[in-house]
Amino acid sequence: MLLGGWNKRVQRGFPGPGWKNTTQQIMSMLNIDLSFRSHTCGELRPADVGEEVTLCGWVQYLRQDLFVIMRDFSGLAQILIPQDEDKMNLKTALCDLPPESVIRVKGTVRLRPDGQENKMPTGEIEVLAESVEILNVCRKLPFEIKDFVKKSESLRMQYRYLDLRSSQMQYNLRLRSQLVMKMREYLCNVHGFVDVETPTLFKRTPGGAKEFVVPSREPGRFYSLPQSPQQFKQLLMVAGIDRYFQLARCYRDEGSKPDRQPEFTQVDIEMSFVDQAGIRGLIEGLVQYSWPVEKDPVSTPFPCITYEKAMKDYGVDKPDTRFAMKLMDISKTFHNTEIEFLKDALNQPGGCIQAICIPDGAKHLKGKDHESLNFHSPDFHYFLPQRPLLGKLRLQCAELLESSGVAVRDPSAFHFLWVVDFPLFLPKEEDPDQLESAHHPFTAPLPEDAHLLYSLPHKVRGQHYDLVLNGCEIGGGSIRIHKASDQQHVLETILKEDPSLLSHLLEALDSGAPPHGGIALGLDRFLSIIVGAPSIRDVIAFPKSFRGHDLMSRAPDFVSEDELKSYHIAVNWPYIKAHIC
Amino acid sequence: MLLGGWNKRVQRGFPGPGWKNTTQQIMSMLNIDLSFRSHTCGELRPADVGEEVTLCGWVQYLRQDLFVIMRDFSGLAQILIPQDEDKMNLKTALCDLPPESVIRVKGTVRLRPDGQENKMPTGEIEVLAESVEILNVCRKLPFEIKDFVKKSESLRMQYRYLDLRSSQMQYNLRLRSQLVMKMREYLCNVHGFVDVETPTLFKRTPGGAKEFVVPSREPGRFYSLPQSPQQFKQLLMVAGIDRYFQLARCYRDEGSKPDRQPEFTQVDIEMSFVDQAGIRGLIEGLVQYSWPVEKDPVSTPFPCITYEKAMKDYGVDKPDTRFAMKLMDISKTFHNTEIEFLKDALNQPGGCIQAICIPDGAKHLKGKDHESLNFHSPDFHYFLPQRPLLGKLRLQCAELLESSGVAVRDPSAFHFLWVVDFPLFLPKEEDPDQLESAHHPFTAPLPEDAHLLYSLPHKVRGQHYDLVLNGCEIGGGSIRIHKASDQQHVLETILKEDPSLLSHLLEALDSGAPPHGGIALGLDRFLSIIVGAPSIRDVIAFPKSFRGHDLMSRAPDFVSEDELKSYHIAVNWPYIKAHIC
Repeated sequence: MLLGGWNKRVQRGFPGPGWKNTTQQIMSMLNIDLSFRSHTCGELRPADVGEEVTLCGWVQYLRQDLFVIMRDFSGLAQILIPQDEDKMNLKTALCDLPPESVIRVKGTVRLRPDGQENKMPTGEIEVLAESVEILNVCRKLPFEIKDFVKKSESLRMQYRYLDLRSSQMQYNLRLRSQLVMKMREYLCNVHGFVDVETPTLFKRTPGGAKEFVVPSREPGRFYSLPQSPQQFKQLLMVAGIDRYFQLARCYRDEGSKPDRQPEFTQVDIEMSFVDQAGIRGLIEGLVQYSWPVEKDPVSTPFPCITYEKAMKDYGVDKPDTRFAMKLMDISKTFHNTEIEFLKDALNQPGGCIQAICIPDGAKHLKGKDHESLNFHSPDFHYFLPQRPLLGKLRLQCAELLESSGVAVRDPSAFHFLWVVDFPLFLPKEEDPDQLESAHHPFTAPLPEDAHLLYSLPHKVRGQHYDLVLNGCEIGGGSIRIHKASDQQHVLETILKEDPSLLSHLLEALDSGAPPHGGIALGLDRFLSIIVGAPSIRDVIAFPKSFRGHDLMSRAPDFVSEDELKSYHIAVNWPYIKAHIC
Repeated sequence: MLLGGWNKRVQRGFPGPGWKNTTQQIMSMLNIDLSFRSHTCGELRPADVGEEVTLCGWVQYLRQDLFVIMRDFSGLAQILIPQDEDKMNLKTALCDLPPESVIRVKGTVRLRPDGQENKMPTGEIEVLAESVEILNVCRKLPFEIKDFVKKSESLRMQYRYLDLRSSQMQYNLRLRSQLVMKMREYLCNVHGFVDVETPTLFKRTPGGAKEFVVPSREPGRFYSLPQSPQQFKQLLMVAGIDRYFQLARCYRDEGSKPDRQPEFTQVDIEMSFVDQAGIRGLIEGLVQYSWPVEKDPVSTPFPCITYEKAMKDYGVDKPDTRFAMKLMDISKTFHNTEIEFLKDALNQPGGCIQAICIPDGAKHLKGKDHESLNFHSPDFHYFLPQRPLLGKLRLQCAELLESSGVAVRDPSAFHFLWVVDFPLFLPKEEDPDQLESAHHPFTAPLPEDAHLLYSLPHKVRGQHYDLVLNGCEIGGGSIRIHKASDQQHVLETILKEDPSLLSHLLEALDSGAPPHGGIALGLDRFLSIIVGAPSIRDVIAFPKSFRGHDLMSRAPDFVSEDELKSYHIAVNWPYIKAHIC
């Protein structure tokens, strides 16, 4: 009667000491007084035998005109349809009922007859129905709600409310909610962070080509949906909030780029009087505290490597450290080589020869694999892209090995890694004499490089840090510039930008800004890695399609000219519009 | 050493049994290892005497070249500047420092000399500085950070990062964060609700004149920022989520209407297999659980009156029940009256005479008050608006009495009230033969009125409920229609709307929708009443001005024609645009 005991306890009040928020316990905490049911389908056990229960849920399927398998969010229960003469109406009603119809069943819990038990959590019991109420009849079903039924992505999106009934999507959304709740507990209750909501109707960032615009009712004036609350979080530090966090909705209009969500969520954090080690420690604790109980625990601190070492060893700034196969410099071996293209490479200034050692590669990789890996590419002759190319090659090799059945990466392993000491500025692609921010213009230099900011800015390393999980960047942040003079120098002298566009931030830094830093974690990406989903669409309740459409409601949609008038805008039709409006 | 003990405990791990989240304790939970400081300014007490401490914060003011009063989010601490010869550099640095500069002080806690204590929480101790680091010099201050310095609203908005340093705004934002955290604990941990994020880039509601549009990169196609997640929350019930909540950002473009925020936050809740009583019980528990500990506890259940009784007794559907002065029908008294306008009123069909009895009114209300209350208004002759007018009059009288010093409403009292049994439909103002939804078209009828839906729809009462606090509507919700046929009847036959525009919702209701209902609480309004703020702007970190502007960054702002091209829109300038672009 443990679960029953919990239920009663919750009805009386709230959880006491020793309470742990495991999924099981949260489910049993439901205050069933609030709803029509006495129990959830999935919680019934032999200990409940003899209890009069009321269950509400969906008809999963009927079996032998004798059983209804009934489902709610917590699991399945078997309902036994009485075969008595005087209950024939009940049998008739149930047996005609389409799957996914909604019913309320009153009945008594009993043990299943010997030999009829199964391994479902409720597999030892069944409920003998005394009365049944049909709450809604399901009339239309574009696909069956069975996990093994394959649905096209577009059908899943169009009927998302059905797709979400699958056990995987139920798990993903519930895990997301629990993980976020634990993060909030850690930040708010353990570390005194203040949850502050910042506006999403803001001013357009100069050159913010990826920002959606929102017309206002003042002619020509537009709000903009921000890509992140970067300015607000820094202003909150100036305001003395000390520790800020927010589960922030962010917007990015990547137009034609496929498989991006126009809106996504980041765990946005900023702290005053902190250094890199402080932020890293905070985030390691955050991940550890919120990590799903059903997974192996995460150990901290996370390993930390410099950008330089990441590029040298893995050819990428977000290495997948679940496997080795590091890049090796084998220039010395080919010191006296006669092979022409290698000789050429070594003769270039700074030229070198790098290699990846694939364990048992000769055994596992076939001729066609070599082709697909594009060995001997002429691109390899050039020094600069050589390492990123090898970084890609390393991942391709891992995939090829795995597709031949070799265990390279443990799919249940989670390898966290900090990457630090990025360059603060990079040469602009279109004009390498000009510098641009490697991340954003608010990142502070490493203290030991700070003096170079005014002499050799291209040599300055920034106090930026990326959090990498299994080869994906799941977060990034920095210690910020907190002095107006430094910020102005970076904007005006180094980046050649007009500082007046950020005058409110510069003024704020001059009004007693504390040293501060922060980070943002990409919640959707983080979750998709935890649950092993192929796309972030699988951890978002109502995602947009590949092309940014909502296939259920058909957004974005046409708006009448008349409705646009109050915003003083008109559509520039690229062709004759008559056939649309 | 209690606080020190807490600190150490938190550094070791996480809070154990018996932990209570009071503000005081949350503050002492700060894991100070993460930051440069060893203690916060406000936490030092005589028990800390002899401790070497490091504090970080702002210079509140200097006193007699001898003390620095230093501030952080937790409070003030007095720093004693050493007067020794060998510490003169320290004295010089501090004494030249403008207020609001940021410093780090290392020193030793000591008792203040006898007679120099004060009533501040840290008033018994001071910190003898050993070293001081100036972290940032404050150069510009448009106004002093002192609670008694009055600032204009526009100055406060323009320099919001300074305005937020005031103790009142710090309190408001921190209370908001704590209240929301408690709400989440209650919903998520106690009642198994799932926190689900729903999209804010959605499809425009037909006739949704108050919805902001967001142009997409497809010509003529727009997203819309929804006024609430109404459709999504219902679809989540169809999806079997069972219990959903979200702190949802909502958008409403009220154009010229002053003092409205274009974006605001609602506590959005939906449940399956629930009736009105279930939702009301849930919300009463939610308010009780999250209620600030420093206020008198809230008792439940909240009183509940019908819409009809609210109109009859108070002349308004959101009565302020902190005071009586109910409307009274005194028609009988004037049965044989010779007073012409009263006689006329009684001769109207359904005519009556209503009055408010103002206790000691004759004593407190003067001649000019009578004028301002507009007694004997000819409007009073008409039956329909008579009650709302008296409802307004009742509030005006209360204000007048209070301005003459009579205690009418206890400013520390919080009177919650449910208002139920609203009419489901109302006659359209512009065409009284047509009906429109009193709230929205998804509200289910009262079970006992359901049969009238197909015969006498204007007589149907809906399962809508409003939550009223001190005369303000802070929430509203309903049990929803869960059968497609009923929903189609309401949309098509009663409201004469095109049901194809909501075809995805109708299809969803036909796919096994459970009975469900929900509510949305206006978080900003709720908080502003709790803290006694005159405007919701005082509980929002970065609100828009009266006219919907962000005065700090100057949003909304002009966007170049070129930038608008990718959205295929152009501005329709109402005048010659040359002088702007």
